[in-house]
Amino acid sequence: MSLTIKSHFASRTYLSFTTKPSRFTGYNTKIRPNSIYHFNPLRLTYYQPKKMQAPVQYSPAPLIKSSLIEPDGGALVDLVVPEGERGAKTIEAESLPKVRLTKIDVEWVHVISEGWANPLKGFMREDEYLQSLHFSSLRLKDGYVVNMSLPIVLAIDDETKERIGSSSHVGLVGPDGDLIAILRSIEIYKHNKEERIARTWGTTAPGLPYVEEVITPAGNWLIGGDLEVLKPIKYNDGLDHYRLSPKQLRKEFDRRNADAVFAFQLRNPVHNGHALLMNDTRRRLLEMGFKNPILLLHPLGGFTKADDVPLDVRMEQHSKVLEDGVLDPETTIVAIFPSPMHYAGPTEVQWHAKARINAGANFYIVGRDPAGMGHPTEKRDLYDPDHGKKVLSMAPGLEKLNILPFRVAAYDIVAKKMAFFDPSRAKDFLFISGTKMRTYARTGENPPDGFMCPGGWEVLVKYYESLQAEEATQQPAAVPS
Amino acid sequence: MSLTIKSHFASRTYLSFTTKPSRFTGYNTKIRPNSIYHFNPLRLTYYQPKKMQAPVQYSPAPLIKSSLIEPDGGALVDLVVPEGERGAKTIEAESLPKVRLTKIDVEWVHVISEGWANPLKGFMREDEYLQSLHFSSLRLKDGYVVNMSLPIVLAIDDETKERIGSSSHVGLVGPDGDLIAILRSIEIYKHNKEERIARTWGTTAPGLPYVEEVITPAGNWLIGGDLEVLKPIKYNDGLDHYRLSPKQLRKEFDRRNADAVFAFQLRNPVHNGHALLMNDTRRRLLEMGFKNPILLLHPLGGFTKADDVPLDVRMEQHSKVLEDGVLDPETTIVAIFPSPMHYAGPTEVQWHAKARINAGANFYIVGRDPAGMGHPTEKRDLYDPDHGKKVLSMAPGLEKLNILPFRVAAYDIVAKKMAFFDPSRAKDFLFISGTKMRTYARTGENPPDGFMCPGGWEVLVKYYESLQAEEATQQPAAVPS
Repeated sequence: MSLTIKSHFASRTYLSFTTKPSRFTGYNTKIRPNSIYHFNPLRLTYYQPKKMQAPVQYSPAPLIKSSLIEPDGGALVDLVVPEGERGAKTIEAESLPKVRLTKIDVEWVHVISEGWANPLKGFMREDEYLQSLHFSSLRLKDGYVVNMSLPIVLAIDDETKERIGSSSHVGLVGPDGDLIAILRSIEIYKHNKEERIARTWGTTAPGLPYVEEVITPAGNWLIGGDLEVLKPIKYNDGLDHYRLSPKQLRKEFDRRNADAVFAFQLRNPVHNGHALLMNDTRRRLLEMGFKNPILLLHPLGGFTKADDVPLDVRMEQHSKVLEDGVLDPETTIVAIFPSPMHYAGPTEVQWHAKARINAGANFYIVGRDPAGMGHPTEKRDLYDPDHGKKVLSMAPGLEKLNILPFRVAAYDIVAKKMAFFDPSRAKDFLFISGTKMRTYARTGENPPDGFMCPGGWEVLVKYYESLQAEEATQQPAAVPS
Repeated sequence: MSLTIKSHFASRTYLSFTTKPSRFTGYNTKIRPNSIYHFNPLRLTYYQPKKMQAPVQYSPAPLIKSSLIEPDGGALVDLVVPEGERGAKTIEAESLPKVRLTKIDVEWVHVISEGWANPLKGFMREDEYLQSLHFSSLRLKDGYVVNMSLPIVLAIDDETKERIGSSSHVGLVGPDGDLIAILRSIEIYKHNKEERIARTWGTTAPGLPYVEEVITPAGNWLIGGDLEVLKPIKYNDGLDHYRLSPKQLRKEFDRRNADAVFAFQLRNPVHNGHALLMNDTRRRLLEMGFKNPILLLHPLGGFTKADDVPLDVRMEQHSKVLEDGVLDPETTIVAIFPSPMHYAGPTEVQWHAKARINAGANFYIVGRDPAGMGHPTEKRDLYDPDHGKKVLSMAPGLEKLNILPFRVAAYDIVAKKMAFFDPSRAKDFLFISGTKMRTYARTGENPPDGFMCPGGWEVLVKYYESLQAEEATQQPAAVPS
């Protein structure tokens, strides 16, 4: 996948934000009322009763305060057991049949417990699983639709199923044997791996990273139910302070008096093209009249494929980018998004966007080929690079989010910096792919001046040097002849 | 796939049709107002602003009168060019670049032109295709959602694409070279077959009938646009009088003063278990207070796989079933549903139901494993037999349709007739699968008395006899020694 980026503000659409009849007579486009929750200045909105009435008519449990966008389903779930009840719940969990979790299962427990997947309250039961697979969305009991494009499920094998028997609840045990959660009112149903893979990735070709790591080795049953997490999930890797929950992020946005939050999802180092885009986005939001747009720089922190740059290195690189002043710490929040990565392109980008709604972001920047990768067995991109942003713009449940497609940025060899691509002088631009960038870092060659801030680049060079050192020590010793 | 059938009326749900608070406070379940369009007596309905406002607030082009259920999108499309304009349009079509259609493409032209796929006005452009693949539904410009689970697309090859060049419109030519339609304001986009197959069928295993017949041989591009059909599609196979359009069916239901229409989709001969179910459905609708429920016996008439019983034989069999009095001609309409068959299980059953909404049916009977088949390479059903009805009950855009799941029927060896299965005397029931039924017919052996009416059975026996005769004449002649 290329690191080439695109940025595009739909300013034309913004300017044409006028009353225009729809193709059904008697049914006019209306400017939405001045709800701060659902106002989308970048999109020509038609009158949508469903969306109009959602935020004003139901008042669920106390809302996490947010000035910007309401969590899916109305209120953020918080599935961590209150401290006073932990002792009793732990004793109960110990008495239940146990399900052993993988590291990635625990990442999902973390994701669900903090409300990233709001209003999901646990691993999916079959009704939710089928809706996710077929419709990329869930219809709630009140008739409203929320986006839910990835099946968030827990697999068990035959033996575990047998062990659970007719128990209604189970205890979830981490990879190290520690009790993590109770799953209540469980439902066990078939795990048709082929169908899950085909409908999620649009291919069943061998070599999909999440499939090989998670699904293929998993059991033939899925177990759904309501989660009660015995204590907050921590990784003790020195990065937990970056793992802000949706609730914490919303508080921080409010503390900073943000009047717009734009989220940037990434799993790669930040180069100056990304920075250009983020800074340009802020400038345009200011031009639109927002007083204090805040950037949520939101690297994905869960499972990634082996050749991606690891999280700790990326976090160090990101902090250098802020230290070097490429991004302004005053208007930027760096936090970790705890989800594992599926590399499922247009299906997954919906999840990335939906989770950020729950975290309080009302603008989402979508790149070329988001969550994409090369086809595992054919010489082509797995997904059409434009499908991600197209699918995102039409996805059920994401209507209230402002989608900001990229504009292409590349290295301008005349200006010696990353700049938005100008097709009238195409020959002045150099496209530096991810592969190319990694080759630079691995071989110790410097990329062109202005591609990335020096502090950030140094982090990458060091990482690849350490990799090579590690590989050298892992060479098989020469067999004595 | 088994011919075992199930019938189940959700009478409990019907009886519990009371006001019940949703899980969000302040948001109560409401009985829908007395709109005859959206009243679903079999489902506990929550207040759904989206659905509530659709029929009453917009008044599109004149509606086809129907007392029962509104077509998706508000008005039935009719894409056949009025007679007075045919001459001029044909001359125009002759001047355009041509696209050659297959027999199955023509079946889709037929389907689209009469409004079965309402509000679709032609082969899908990319936005519609992506929504169909990812969401099984389309969001209309007014914000309403209609079901659209199968991509209805037209494929072209590289050479045809080149020939079309920058033309905005193309002429569509049938397999015999006759001009059939104009496709206007075309859009050509990539045909990623692997992704289409994986997302539609949930598998990419070789041996899916529609894939092998239609998709694998097709070109690598899809062409979308608006259809203008030069004259009504006819097959001249002696069955055209059975091919009633949605508009004609709606007129017929009104002529008969139907106050409920229940559709039965099938691609197999009707045995007495089916008949029991259909008659029982009518009885229950009468019990509910409907005065004149009409059965739409609606065999699928387009492409089917080689070992299915052909359409002409099925139609003859169905008419014997009415002649023999197994179904009452006074309360039954037999017509052909012109769609090709995908055998795509839970994805396809939505299409089967949605098309019947457009034809004016407000009740839909769903079987075990609808549109299912055996997995093409593994020894199991391709789909979980229960997923069809589950997915159907949750599908976006089908909320206004009453879904009637089957109850199991089997041959009762004591009563010597097809009867609803009684688990308390399971040993008295004989399950006669489709394979078993075909074996009976092929070998000339009679099935148990009461399995099928004698007239209908005779049709099948004759068909299999003719098949065997044909096979015998196709044996290679012995080489003279």
